[in-house]
Amino acid sequence: MQQPVTAEIISIGDELLYGQIMDTNSKWLSEEMDKIGVRVVRKTTIGDDHQSMLGAFEAAAITADIILITGGLGPTKDDLTKSVLADYFGSSLELFPDALEDVRNLFHSRGKELTATNRSQAYLPSNCKYIRNEVGTAPGMWFEEKGKIFMSMPGVPHEMKYLMEEEVIPRLKKKYQLPVIYHKLVRTVGIGESWLSDLISDWEEKLPAHIRLAYLPSLGEVKLRLTAFGTHQELLAAEVETHIERLLPLISKYVYGFNDDILPTAIGHLLVKHGKTLALAESCTGGYISHLITSIPGSSDYFNGGIIPYHNEFKEAVLGVSAEVLTSNGAVSEATVTEMARHARNKFHSDFGLASSGIAGPGGGTKEKPVGLVWIACDDGQACHTRKLQLTKDRTVNIHLTAIAALNLLRETILRATT
Amino acid sequence: MQQPVTAEIISIGDELLYGQIMDTNSKWLSEEMDKIGVRVVRKTTIGDDHQSMLGAFEAAAITADIILITGGLGPTKDDLTKSVLADYFGSSLELFPDALEDVRNLFHSRGKELTATNRSQAYLPSNCKYIRNEVGTAPGMWFEEKGKIFMSMPGVPHEMKYLMEEEVIPRLKKKYQLPVIYHKLVRTVGIGESWLSDLISDWEEKLPAHIRLAYLPSLGEVKLRLTAFGTHQELLAAEVETHIERLLPLISKYVYGFNDDILPTAIGHLLVKHGKTLALAESCTGGYISHLITSIPGSSDYFNGGIIPYHNEFKEAVLGVSAEVLTSNGAVSEATVTEMARHARNKFHSDFGLASSGIAGPGGGTKEKPVGLVWIACDDGQACHTRKLQLTKDRTVNIHLTAIAALNLLRETILRATT
Repeated sequence: MQQPVTAEIISIGDELLYGQIMDTNSKWLSEEMDKIGVRVVRKTTIGDDHQSMLGAFEAAAITADIILITGGLGPTKDDLTKSVLADYFGSSLELFPDALEDVRNLFHSRGKELTATNRSQAYLPSNCKYIRNEVGTAPGMWFEEKGKIFMSMPGVPHEMKYLMEEEVIPRLKKKYQLPVIYHKLVRTVGIGESWLSDLISDWEEKLPAHIRLAYLPSLGEVKLRLTAFGTHQELLAAEVETHIERLLPLISKYVYGFNDDILPTAIGHLLVKHGKTLALAESCTGGYISHLITSIPGSSDYFNGGIIPYHNEFKEAVLGVSAEVLTSNGAVSEATVTEMARHARNKFHSDFGLASSGIAGPGGGTKEKPVGLVWIACDDGQACHTRKLQLTKDRTVNIHLTAIAALNLLRETILRATT
Repeated sequence: MQQPVTAEIISIGDELLYGQIMDTNSKWLSEEMDKIGVRVVRKTTIGDDHQSMLGAFEAAAITADIILITGGLGPTKDDLTKSVLADYFGSSLELFPDALEDVRNLFHSRGKELTATNRSQAYLPSNCKYIRNEVGTAPGMWFEEKGKIFMSMPGVPHEMKYLMEEEVIPRLKKKYQLPVIYHKLVRTVGIGESWLSDLISDWEEKLPAHIRLAYLPSLGEVKLRLTAFGTHQELLAAEVETHIERLLPLISKYVYGFNDDILPTAIGHLLVKHGKTLALAESCTGGYISHLITSIPGSSDYFNGGIIPYHNEFKEAVLGVSAEVLTSNGAVSEATVTEMARHARNKFHSDFGLASSGIAGPGGGTKEKPVGLVWIACDDGQACHTRKLQLTKDRTVNIHLTAIAALNLLRETILRATT
């Protein structure tokens, strides 16, 4: 296999180091490089500081073929990228007439006169190729030296994206013979990383060298990412699919979707496919399950509505849970959550009713019912399926884990009811 | 001024280089270091690769005093951080009995047996100090070598934050004589950054050099952060308070709280203070407002409950909005949202009823009622206050902006009703 073309992404700006803004640029650049088969080997963030920038450029040129730089290009004095690049290449800043023309035109089109500060934006390192930025005043600069590409772009996201899409990516594709890469995500829920790893270890061992597996765990879920490297997109896709076909029987119970389909999306697909509808009764999750469901465009096609009877008296008064069940079992109990699911289903004339009741914490726990104790239930009209969870001491984590577990119970119930 | 204590943040994971997840950890760590007066000088992101990790550790030890490492600590084989750290320090992995005990207890408390894979998580570099992670299975590891601190933490955000807040920050404060920094956040809602800047420009001009102002805008809100540098905490605090006292009259209408008090927390304080209760009727926000309210510990003291009549027929059937109002005005109208707020308040015997109805998008818009049109209402028993919003074409953004605007309307209504 040929050596991959590599890239480093350098983000410049004190505001990034101080945590004042999220560096969304470097994530976007990573994704774009990944799509065209360039392997990002490092991302570096530094401040508006001459020495740090010089050091970063030097280190990047050792590691990577392509160095993508964002930030430090505004007209103010703390923006140093141009002069450090000139230093690094041993060139000097000179006036680029076409750059000056472009800045002048931009200001003219906005009905403004060119200031001296803006005029300075047309001074660029003499060894760069000036790349026009049609959507802003900071220029793009392309350098080719000693077999390396340096590309300097503004930090403003839409200006950077414009330059990448219109100029940089087409140039890189022309310049390098890029490998073909095929990714596929397999999304699982209801099983931890280590159990999953145990179930699929034999299959994992047999993956060929050009297909890599990664575990991507997040709270309540684990994604498996397969990445294949080669020369033919269709061939790689077919090969990855073959491996996934062998994988699925080992973990079919836990797989809810692929690629960008998050759990609420997968549930939406299931409900639409079978023409079914959903209602919720949320106590400890306090509207979070409903929020996850309704974040998906088109959810009004299958989500009828929900009730959040947060204070116990409204479990009876608004939702209709019987006073007797509540007093003899308590709000956090299998009996209560079963009634909650049933009443939600009935109130909203739905096929499925999903309910949660638990002690999210940090307060409200007792010896018998500690913080983190949660009951969830899903009623499909024939039966009510329940599950007891013992979660953590952290309120936010408990709310999230309960929602994921409840959505998974719903998924299993839909599958059972429709097959 | 003495040399600042410096830090480098190293984030490990192929998924970060490929752009599959956003590195929220490094932003959070940057903010926390900034708060305690440690200067972050570089952030580096590398993949699950032995050589890259070794190189990053070596480079970081040259640049920074403190090296904060996240990621690469799961139980699966692509997680290499522990073995590379052992290599880097010339130590070796050995079983830490207290780490094993902790992993075993965690699994036991979740009713699960320890697997061999999880057992391996108790093997740590022999020269580290094991730092207990009470909220997960990946350990914290603290190293002190040649005047540098290395701290390795899991990449799972809430586990990393737990270790930082409970263990790392207290240790760093003890270990270094950090400069005295005093921060205060002034939180505003209902006004944009540039308008805010215009209102306070005279005040801003008069700030002394050792007090810095930063605008921290986020969707629907702008925070002002004042940072004072000096030698005496009490003196700085008093000085900052004096400046804030001068600031508040200029923008009092928009200020809802200070420091960590997010908007739902501020509303909780107001409701508790006046002994009042809240009910919700959410259509386009689909449970998100309820989720924001119930994310706050203790919200059961003032939040009675909510109804999400997502499908229109249940605005009538479950919530009680009159059929006539719905048919003659439509669901997205001032008349409907007014009834929604009133019925929510009555159903849940609450002091305030808050409601939303709108077209979140991307579908469902018409010429008269385009995507992004939203009505919100707050009923206090005497009157119902409404507001019309015209937001964006983005569903997620619209849901969030509606929730913030609705909470702000609630805040204003509570203030009016209680003074």
